[in-house]
Amino acid sequence: MMNPKPYIPVERILLGPGPSPVPQRVLRAMAAPTLGHLDPDYLAIMDNTCEMLRQVFRTKNLLTFPVSGTGMAGMECIAVNMIEPGDEVIVCVNGVFGTRMKDVMERCGAIVHAIEITWSDVFTLEQIKTVLDQHPKVKLVGIVHAETSTGAHQPLEGLAELVHGRGALLVVDAVTSLGGHELCVDDWGIDAIYSGTQKCLSCPPGLSPVSFGERALARLDARKSKPQSWYLDVSMLRKYYTDGGGGGGRVYHHTAPINMTYALHEALVMVLEEGLDARIARHATMHQRLRNGLEGMGIRYIPKRSLHSLNCINIPAGADDAGVRRRLLEEYGIEIGSGLGPMAGKAWRIGLMGHGASIRNVDLVLAALREVLR
Amino acid sequence: MMNPKPYIPVERILLGPGPSPVPQRVLRAMAAPTLGHLDPDYLAIMDNTCEMLRQVFRTKNLLTFPVSGTGMAGMECIAVNMIEPGDEVIVCVNGVFGTRMKDVMERCGAIVHAIEITWSDVFTLEQIKTVLDQHPKVKLVGIVHAETSTGAHQPLEGLAELVHGRGALLVVDAVTSLGGHELCVDDWGIDAIYSGTQKCLSCPPGLSPVSFGERALARLDARKSKPQSWYLDVSMLRKYYTDGGGGGGRVYHHTAPINMTYALHEALVMVLEEGLDARIARHATMHQRLRNGLEGMGIRYIPKRSLHSLNCINIPAGADDAGVRRRLLEEYGIEIGSGLGPMAGKAWRIGLMGHGASIRNVDLVLAALREVLR
Repeated sequence: MMNPKPYIPVERILLGPGPSPVPQRVLRAMAAPTLGHLDPDYLAIMDNTCEMLRQVFRTKNLLTFPVSGTGMAGMECIAVNMIEPGDEVIVCVNGVFGTRMKDVMERCGAIVHAIEITWSDVFTLEQIKTVLDQHPKVKLVGIVHAETSTGAHQPLEGLAELVHGRGALLVVDAVTSLGGHELCVDDWGIDAIYSGTQKCLSCPPGLSPVSFGERALARLDARKSKPQSWYLDVSMLRKYYTDGGGGGGRVYHHTAPINMTYALHEALVMVLEEGLDARIARHATMHQRLRNGLEGMGIRYIPKRSLHSLNCINIPAGADDAGVRRRLLEEYGIEIGSGLGPMAGKAWRIGLMGHGASIRNVDLVLAALREVLR
Repeated sequence: MMNPKPYIPVERILLGPGPSPVPQRVLRAMAAPTLGHLDPDYLAIMDNTCEMLRQVFRTKNLLTFPVSGTGMAGMECIAVNMIEPGDEVIVCVNGVFGTRMKDVMERCGAIVHAIEITWSDVFTLEQIKTVLDQHPKVKLVGIVHAETSTGAHQPLEGLAELVHGRGALLVVDAVTSLGGHELCVDDWGIDAIYSGTQKCLSCPPGLSPVSFGERALARLDARKSKPQSWYLDVSMLRKYYTDGGGGGGRVYHHTAPINMTYALHEALVMVLEEGLDARIARHATMHQRLRNGLEGMGIRYIPKRSLHSLNCINIPAGADDAGVRRRLLEEYGIEIGSGLGPMAGKAWRIGLMGHGASIRNVDLVLAALREVLR
């Protein structure tokens, strides 16, 4: 039998692919006393949280709420609700998260037509149009806005017109972009989108903000079968997170993660205090500052079109991947990310997300890299 | 546009069906700085958490860990991993959570033979044996140890022998019993079990402790199809939560809810500091004290065999259900639970769970009920 004893926390500077550094204000908010999930005070906080999420997603979608799980639960929530067995879908694969989307949708019984391109590249409208032309029955196109495995930043403008023209839905993974990159759910015509709290929102991991537009809800209402997941069934979740407009009040579904909601609420207050435009501009500025420093050291970026929130770089020739990361962690308390999947051993991933995207962190990580790469 | 402002918390005494009151120590632990999910320090906390969970479940099962979602995610995790489409299963239904288990398993493609009895009653071995005799191909029997909707306490001794004798697995819902009622996973031969953090463990909601025994893992290894959920796929999760014994190290699956793990770790430290036997005895004593008080006021318990952690009582004739609960909340800051499903308007549910099972709370809620029922 182990001897139980309280955990004494260490402090890291989180400059990996997420989680990102969480401000003290958010940690403190999370530690407020737990309320019941049907308490009027808690429902008010949840309503405010959903309203702030709408602002950050730039959407009027009523059904915008945090799924009770981490980012991958948000991906799965959209897949199980939007797909019925036998549906044909297109998934754009240029990294780990596109690959996962394909896997998740296949588990929902979808016939997935994957468009695979070189990892770290991004898709052109023409590439997607070609595959849509080949598969006229496609009901959904899934694409990753911010590929956390490669740092590639996928443009989305114009895609919805193409997809909607074929009667399909546009589904977007915005886990590493929400709150750090320009993202306009309504203007860009996105039908269903999911994100995570632990990236550019600087909240601990544990919730996955999602938003469903009218086309997506029409698809949900037209389903012939129940979604295969009870936990993620939006036809029930919507009766808890909204009163459905019918005045029927809130219907208990599952016990929401109360204290995580406090944290997300405070994180969103901080996003809106700063202003979404100013926050996005800060991410761009800090990315450019880091990029200038790294390129000045002769380090090259892997993707042609890099995210601001995640910088995926080649490990310099002769550098010891694990050794460098261990020294950063042990000597500086800095976490950066290793390469994921086929990029293991070839790439490092430096996140500048949310609270972490600061001049202090950029200059520190550059100084630390100069030291450990000497 | 709403004006974003920080939330000012209210304090309630949570004596409903969960969440239960969270000790300040746990809230404070949860607010420790967020670490990365592959940080060696975080993996050490996760290992300790799993080891403490084994002690609380009274099991040696290596694969014992907290699923990244609330209790219903734990139920779904076991269902998607243990069931393949077309499998015949038996589900024992005597309340809302048995009904849900039937729904969840049907969504996994199971042919469910439900044994339905009067809600608030519990099952006899003979009843289950009769249905097993009718369906010799049954691969799994699911039953609820602590029915949160009715307060009924299901005995489990002897059931595994019966179920294993037919080559089936025994799956148990222990959401409202773990840490507050006697529960012996190994001695009782339970093959797979799930619980929640927000009941007798007195941790905020957000995680679902689960444990899988050898028979369950053999079932998993023999699957012909992938589990329909990626997020809850134990064949991948086990590579993150354990090194699988193969020395292959930890493999990233999803970003675990880091700060929730801190909270669960501290909550489990508190359980083991008190001692599991002492904690279970405290729940029994406080239940009896509440029961004596309520019965002295002429209030009757609904289930014949009541849980200690949840007291489901008839609303006294003439009392205004919602009015009484509102007065308790507004005048005393006390939350109790309404009746769920068909018991709405007929029952109240008073939880005495974990930190909440104290003489202070028992005497207070009795005094408050005497006042508002005058």
